[in-house]
Amino acid sequence: VSVPEPTVSPAGTGTQLPALDSERLRSTLEEAAQIGRWRSPGVQRLALSDADRQMRDTFCAWCQDSGLEVRIDRVGNVFARRPGAGDEAAEPVMVGSHLDTQVAGGRYDGVLGVLAALEVVRWLEDYGVQTARPVEVVSWCNEEGARFRPPMLGSAVFAGGLSLEAALEELDDDGRRFGDELERIGYAGTARVPGPPPHAYFELHIEQDDLLERAGRDLGIVTSAYSARGMAVRLRGRTGHAGSTPMERRQDALVGAAEVIAGLDALGRQGGTRTRATATRLDAWPNRAGIIAGEALITLDYRHADNSGLNRMTQEVERLITDASARRGLEWSAEAVWEFGSGITFDPNLARLARDNAQRMGVEWLEMTSAAGHDAYWLATVAPTLILFVPCVGGVTHNEHEEIEFDRVLRGANVLAATVLEAAGHELKPLEER
Amino acid sequence: VSVPEPTVSPAGTGTQLPALDSERLRSTLEEAAQIGRWRSPGVQRLALSDADRQMRDTFCAWCQDSGLEVRIDRVGNVFARRPGAGDEAAEPVMVGSHLDTQVAGGRYDGVLGVLAALEVVRWLEDYGVQTARPVEVVSWCNEEGARFRPPMLGSAVFAGGLSLEAALEELDDDGRRFGDELERIGYAGTARVPGPPPHAYFELHIEQDDLLERAGRDLGIVTSAYSARGMAVRLRGRTGHAGSTPMERRQDALVGAAEVIAGLDALGRQGGTRTRATATRLDAWPNRAGIIAGEALITLDYRHADNSGLNRMTQEVERLITDASARRGLEWSAEAVWEFGSGITFDPNLARLARDNAQRMGVEWLEMTSAAGHDAYWLATVAPTLILFVPCVGGVTHNEHEEIEFDRVLRGANVLAATVLEAAGHELKPLEER
Repeated sequence: VSVPEPTVSPAGTGTQLPALDSERLRSTLEEAAQIGRWRSPGVQRLALSDADRQMRDTFCAWCQDSGLEVRIDRVGNVFARRPGAGDEAAEPVMVGSHLDTQVAGGRYDGVLGVLAALEVVRWLEDYGVQTARPVEVVSWCNEEGARFRPPMLGSAVFAGGLSLEAALEELDDDGRRFGDELERIGYAGTARVPGPPPHAYFELHIEQDDLLERAGRDLGIVTSAYSARGMAVRLRGRTGHAGSTPMERRQDALVGAAEVIAGLDALGRQGGTRTRATATRLDAWPNRAGIIAGEALITLDYRHADNSGLNRMTQEVERLITDASARRGLEWSAEAVWEFGSGITFDPNLARLARDNAQRMGVEWLEMTSAAGHDAYWLATVAPTLILFVPCVGGVTHNEHEEIEFDRVLRGANVLAATVLEAAGHELKPLEER
Repeated sequence: VSVPEPTVSPAGTGTQLPALDSERLRSTLEEAAQIGRWRSPGVQRLALSDADRQMRDTFCAWCQDSGLEVRIDRVGNVFARRPGAGDEAAEPVMVGSHLDTQVAGGRYDGVLGVLAALEVVRWLEDYGVQTARPVEVVSWCNEEGARFRPPMLGSAVFAGGLSLEAALEELDDDGRRFGDELERIGYAGTARVPGPPPHAYFELHIEQDDLLERAGRDLGIVTSAYSARGMAVRLRGRTGHAGSTPMERRQDALVGAAEVIAGLDALGRQGGTRTRATATRLDAWPNRAGIIAGEALITLDYRHADNSGLNRMTQEVERLITDASARRGLEWSAEAVWEFGSGITFDPNLARLARDNAQRMGVEWLEMTSAAGHDAYWLATVAPTLILFVPCVGGVTHNEHEEIEFDRVLRGANVLAATVLEAAGHELKPLEER
């Protein structure tokens, strides 16, 4: 297929604008990848760490240099606003993602969506395009959940799905409080939460699987989400001597945990591509040589492409934990439970708009279901929302070797630009009138 | 059965001495149990911690108050000497155990053997008994291996089974060096290691199983040891997103570790009471919500009542790890391996002496195999050695609820006293001559 010269062609206008500035986006991404650089080419920017602060400071400086007005809310979400031509009080079109990463993070998960949003407003500025509504670039706080529970914390508080008070009291593994760390890095802002719902919310993100790549398409238009449930489960047994305690008298919490971990993996395989189940962390106690584990805390999540499937999995997971505990003489309790994705719907009008733009711009797209959680899930509970996926090489993600083909990603970013422009309203004249 | 009035009756003399001072031993144990008190009635005195220092300081003060001369060697073992009547250079009879505990430690594991030894020399002093050879009370450093690898570190260095240099470089979980911590608590002594082998070594210890209790006997005379092998095994997979990564494309190190942990437990059950196998700790990486584990470090040990059995288990453990790794797409390597107990023999003459004394003193005994490791294993490689077991309630150990019946333990301690006295040589006159 011949790929047309990239342009941004918002639907319904017959108008074409030059494409986004690919070199500017590329170099902005490259600069961001140096912040928290880790196991090159990887990145480690845990939420509210020094690297996160440095990334936020750099991002805010970029926004201010582009003439945007930056505001920070009480949970540390950052908004950078480009005013609209119309009513000052009109709800903005919001575009963004997150700047924090996993412990073993890559260069694109999250940050690509924020910097593509920044490129869209820079591009509006380049061509003096006046939108009717304000356009806001947003970076949500603690999306990964790698440091503070739950994941998507900032967008959850913004959307009213989690109280500010609960969020501020969250502790990391070293017992440091979310609220204190937010103060420490200077990002405890004053904008109120829950925040006012935007007119529309867009998020561009790497796909994190290889379906686009295998289909040879450049854009995923996300129309549904896996339902996901996370739990922190504590198993309690009894410590004892690893040498002298006879096997049949043990209440070994680590063996119980092992059965749960292996069982979860098997459960995740039962539904083919429609299911996932993972124990992501295991904290045993006292976790020392010579002593049988007295406790084990398993952090797990499981996901299903449909909500009734998730409910069945919930029963199976609970049976798995109950059976393993009974066999090993353990007691168990769920210390935390979180859910996302259940019943989420993305806005069909925004999806149609994106589809039409992609079609016109010669970008091949695929309708997709998102298996990963995104801040957009929370935004979808308060505003019309759309996620656009771009391919990542081999689906490798949450891994330092995360990679993209830049040209393919750029095609998706141009579709994002066209769709944001339309959602924000504009007075671009059709080509024949210019 | 009628239990005779407790006395100490060394064999071959017809002599009787009054028994050990039970109230003194009881109150000394009680005082020690307050140091590092934790989850009452438990104790947490990790090697080279502040609690360990406080326990050592108290122990040294007790020794000095009893007129003993304290010396400390370069790896932190503490020796308290009561001179003999004979040649100054004669090898001493050494009696002791360890003062450090597990993270979830009890009041008797280790400390009972040290304080029973102290009671024996106090008792020699009470009755002005002059032994031919010096008697030394010893407290070995870092027996548990709960903080620094390997277990029985101090006695291993003393016996020449581990180099001082290697021991000093060991790191704890927080990266603190053994040598630095030894300096910090003020127990980096000057006595050279390996140390001069004693004439004989005795260790009294709680049994840590319930065989004595079930047999209704008060004393275990240890005539053999399980062979044990410990390993730290690292599995390497690949991090990925717990939601988006399809199950069949995972290389989940935690799932591989789970299969090894469960498999080890099954392996430990194959030999009935003759085998044990345990994963005691599991350190996964990055061990965060939302990400598939890229690495898992399993600390494990397995034991067999005979050495050829241990060799078979070694093959089975390696196959278990290899198979789980192959199934899960992991690579594995052993980062550390340690062994103890293989080929250990305890001195039959000392055992016969203890048996004769027990018989004469009306203490019912049982010949036993030790499944737990003890400092005596290392001493047995350089000197005639004997371990005496005393019952612990329900075999509960490495647990804060470790408990003893004091009267039963006292009977064992009296047999220890008689046997030490004979091994050290004395000029007690037969009863009829006094």
